[in-house]
Amino acid sequence: MIREKYARLAYHRFPRTTAQYLGHRRVDTTPPEEGLPDFHPPPLPQEDPYCLDNAPPNLGYLVRMQGGILFVYDNKKMLERQEPHSLPYPDLETYTVDMSHILALITDGPTKTYCHRRLNFLESKFSLHEMLNEMSEFKELKSNPHRDFYNVRKVDTHIHAAACMNQKHLLRFIKHTYQTEPDRTVAEKRGRKITLRQVFDSLHMDPYDLTVDSLDVHAGRQTFHRFDKFNSKYNPVGASELRDLYLKTENYLGGEYFARMVKEVARELEESKYQYSEPRLSIYGRSPEEWPNLARWFIQHKVYSPNMRWIIQVPRIYDIFRAKKLLPSFGKMLENIFLPLFEATINPQDHQELHLFLKYVTGFDSVDDESKHSDHMFSDKSPSPDIWTSEQNPPYSYYLYYMYANIMVLNNLRRERGLSTFLFRPHCGEAGSITHLVSAFLTADNISHGLLLKKSPVLQYLYYLAQIPIAMSPLSNNSLFLEYSKNPLREFLHKGLHVSLSTDDPMQFHYTKEALMEEYAIAAQVWKLSTCDLCEIARNSVLQSGLSHQEKQKFLGQNYYKEGPEGNDIRKTNVAQIRMAFRYETLCNELSFLSDAMKSEEITALTQ
Amino acid sequence: MIREKYARLAYHRFPRTTAQYLGHRRVDTTPPEEGLPDFHPPPLPQEDPYCLDNAPPNLGYLVRMQGGILFVYDNKKMLERQEPHSLPYPDLETYTVDMSHILALITDGPTKTYCHRRLNFLESKFSLHEMLNEMSEFKELKSNPHRDFYNVRKVDTHIHAAACMNQKHLLRFIKHTYQTEPDRTVAEKRGRKITLRQVFDSLHMDPYDLTVDSLDVHAGRQTFHRFDKFNSKYNPVGASELRDLYLKTENYLGGEYFARMVKEVARELEESKYQYSEPRLSIYGRSPEEWPNLARWFIQHKVYSPNMRWIIQVPRIYDIFRAKKLLPSFGKMLENIFLPLFEATINPQDHQELHLFLKYVTGFDSVDDESKHSDHMFSDKSPSPDIWTSEQNPPYSYYLYYMYANIMVLNNLRRERGLSTFLFRPHCGEAGSITHLVSAFLTADNISHGLLLKKSPVLQYLYYLAQIPIAMSPLSNNSLFLEYSKNPLREFLHKGLHVSLSTDDPMQFHYTKEALMEEYAIAAQVWKLSTCDLCEIARNSVLQSGLSHQEKQKFLGQNYYKEGPEGNDIRKTNVAQIRMAFRYETLCNELSFLSDAMKSEEITALTQ
Repeated sequence: MIREKYARLAYHRFPRTTAQYLGHRRVDTTPPEEGLPDFHPPPLPQEDPYCLDNAPPNLGYLVRMQGGILFVYDNKKMLERQEPHSLPYPDLETYTVDMSHILALITDGPTKTYCHRRLNFLESKFSLHEMLNEMSEFKELKSNPHRDFYNVRKVDTHIHAAACMNQKHLLRFIKHTYQTEPDRTVAEKRGRKITLRQVFDSLHMDPYDLTVDSLDVHAGRQTFHRFDKFNSKYNPVGASELRDLYLKTENYLGGEYFARMVKEVARELEESKYQYSEPRLSIYGRSPEEWPNLARWFIQHKVYSPNMRWIIQVPRIYDIFRAKKLLPSFGKMLENIFLPLFEATINPQDHQELHLFLKYVTGFDSVDDESKHSDHMFSDKSPSPDIWTSEQNPPYSYYLYYMYANIMVLNNLRRERGLSTFLFRPHCGEAGSITHLVSAFLTADNISHGLLLKKSPVLQYLYYLAQIPIAMSPLSNNSLFLEYSKNPLREFLHKGLHVSLSTDDPMQFHYTKEALMEEYAIAAQVWKLSTCDLCEIARNSVLQSGLSHQEKQKFLGQNYYKEGPEGNDIRKTNVAQIRMAFRYETLCNELSFLSDAMKSEEITALTQ
Repeated sequence: MIREKYARLAYHRFPRTTAQYLGHRRVDTTPPEEGLPDFHPPPLPQEDPYCLDNAPPNLGYLVRMQGGILFVYDNKKMLERQEPHSLPYPDLETYTVDMSHILALITDGPTKTYCHRRLNFLESKFSLHEMLNEMSEFKELKSNPHRDFYNVRKVDTHIHAAACMNQKHLLRFIKHTYQTEPDRTVAEKRGRKITLRQVFDSLHMDPYDLTVDSLDVHAGRQTFHRFDKFNSKYNPVGASELRDLYLKTENYLGGEYFARMVKEVARELEESKYQYSEPRLSIYGRSPEEWPNLARWFIQHKVYSPNMRWIIQVPRIYDIFRAKKLLPSFGKMLENIFLPLFEATINPQDHQELHLFLKYVTGFDSVDDESKHSDHMFSDKSPSPDIWTSEQNPPYSYYLYYMYANIMVLNNLRRERGLSTFLFRPHCGEAGSITHLVSAFLTADNISHGLLLKKSPVLQYLYYLAQIPIAMSPLSNNSLFLEYSKNPLREFLHKGLHVSLSTDDPMQFHYTKEALMEEYAIAAQVWKLSTCDLCEIARNSVLQSGLSHQEKQKFLGQNYYKEGPEGNDIRKTNVAQIRMAFRYETLCNELSFLSDAMKSEEITALTQ
């Protein structure tokens, strides 16, 4: 119920079935498609995806950051009176109470035992289901015309744009630029123009000789448990010059090379027809100019693709910027990240490019090494972001709360204007403290990784009951935090957690041209997944994604938003109805246990 | 030394280093390229690969099968006198003595202990090498210009032509034929012509609805330890009509559909540029017409590709043909298999098509379910093939001996004429009895699978010392006989056995378009193989293959046939010299132990 509250506030998703059982609301009369997040449908084929017309007018609202959260005022007078525009605003005190409630829950002995047993039960139940119904499921799929694993829609739910091409692709692209335009000016250093040839000369390198080995952007045994080494792999040949030139949106060429490569990846997706991807682009929060620059990059280089929907990732590296004196406080970083979005929402006319770009952005991600320890414990006593001026990095939970808080207000403001909303989809549970998963349980619509759910039965059970989507990347984990054979994906899938498969960083982890298919193939081979398993994962990935309502209807069926077998159209998903029924009955069974227990507690309370 | 004898007789390969140590021949003056098997170099770009001119003249020799082996006679008179042409002919008695020698060796207690310890030592030694030299190896590769894992040559050393396309490819092809030529006559049944539409009508199927699931040619959990189920997967939609139509060389269309698909696979290999494959085509031995038919299929449909070299597989299914009364004896089956080859060798003028086709054939494979038990024990008391008329199938070792024996005679005859020779490359050690690996130790140039070497330290050590190439297909094993994580490939590679990676059956086991890359990628990911490991495997695959001397020089370096680091050209193979030196020193070290022991035994013998 706590999660439901935060989800509703932010237009995140919460399963109706779970809500009904917990709230004793056996009959829910609101139409099920209501309360869904709002994503722009893609432009029609005849429409120009870069058309800047029809931006809504300026509302004239004012925005001020107070305690790390942006408040909206109707006008100057209301600002002076400190009466913000009527929107839900987060309340830190309530949040920390809710947080500590869940923290208490996950360490409570009897609760742990209960959840552990239920999870074991779920796993055994699936094994039984498999033994009994495997052949019937396959029979259903065999008699399902025209649809198989290859032509069901799959979304790569977690992928970083700067590593979305594979290593061979990057290598070929670098060689190609050198062959075709060696004398082009590609950088400027202290007023001196530098050509591509000079860049490579200064690195004492002939691109003809360059290989995947010397490029050295692939993770290997050396990166295991070394996120720092992994991060430095983003520098081709170890040279940050090449990262700036080829993998950044802001540089002398206005990010042209990067845009070209991303578009090549997009063309391949479009050709594959059934694959979609949600690449992450970075906003760092060093300056409010990052947003308009990114929007300009997107429009100028025509980066739009019907097979891509964009996520903005915010690296948790305030400490680095603060140490370099690029930022005075954490509050300023938040302001740089969110104020431009509020302004573009209130006054799209004056921020046409950003307004347009935001149509194709469907969420926010929070990224960085989770295994870094933080000394600070987030509570309502923590210094608020505007007075967080120390060089210390705020802890994970602090980042998550303030990102959620601002996204929540922004979503409500945008919803009021009929504009699209955003999902918060942080990296979570890849490493580090288990409490990260508590923060995300409240603040995130869905997460990437979630490995550490392995270590907390209570959280794992809660993620199951709330059907929180988890984008898992076992090949990434295999190079960084957890060996493939120990990855919990198979176990999570069997228990009924809402898992999808994603690549994270094809440049660093994959070998073939088709990274997402490589991910599915390896999972299928190593864990002997059935076609029904694979198609269930693919269906989950579409549900988890920021694809629009219209697209989901097209890819999964008219009623995709309904839970249980009635939400499944086997002709589109190739998931057996037997499987869907099993999942739904199993979830209802778990929920009814809880709901019965709640009722009997109420009765006991009443009769005492 | 026993293996060396059989290898030399058949123009199989035996490592010089091992030969020198065992024979105390410290100085071997024969040039190392001598004694190599002879494969035709591919036709030059301007040459017509199907040119039938220049077939050598008829020698007029006569051939007779005697005791399952083909004997060559210079003329009628010599035949009457029973004086065969001067060639080495096999001797069953010696063979069975040699065989029992090795059988005794592999069960000898002290030998087992010794080999077990040496193998453990080899494994630990490699671990140590890895810890000490991993970074140096990678540094060598990084500074190696222009060559990386993607552009080193790789050969798919074990693949069946009838399953060389992936399931999606087959599906697309079937749909395409139905769309473009539904009214074409594709079969004839009891004099009635049948169109493609009628074929599908009779199966109550609309190809538009056909999916990978209903096609049902992919192995899954149901095939584990069920070779019978696996075999039936070769029938699309479970219909043998479709297998005949799409996956056979002999049918109403003259195998056109199959040829077209194989050629599509070949075009993809040619585009990939660095990948080669050695597909197996079947000769069953039911009739002597199979050979000319196959040659005609090859030439008529222009199946030649520079990226493919062909292997002939002979299924061990005499019992089935005998039960159907298609064959009177096992000897007849051998005669159907080998006599056409002898005739085409003696009189190419009258067998021009077969003579041409044989230029592109480089070996023989022996295939079927090894786990089938046989009651018969092969010995020199066994009935010879001409009197093997029972319905019982001869055992594995019997098949192997008679195939080897005929290939050996044939190779000598062909060598005499300056024609190419063949390698015997049976499936071996995939399942069943460990003695299969003993048979192959004598008779095979190299084998496919070799999984059961895991169970015999003596044989494993012998395969190591003789550096017998093993084409391993862990994804195939994963669906049939051994889970991926338990596959010994990594362990064999570490110890220094000569392993390569191969796909076996992309149609049944792989998910992506690039089956061989999928095989490499999964091995790399699951076992965390280094680039040097991968390139070593790729180099092994080229060495193992039937690519010609000229191609191997081009792909691996001028001196590829020399052993140790001097045979490695890192600019072409991307294998670190540190690795090559380690392998060579390690092998020499093992051999010198044996050689020293042999010497001291001789001295003891002399002084007694």
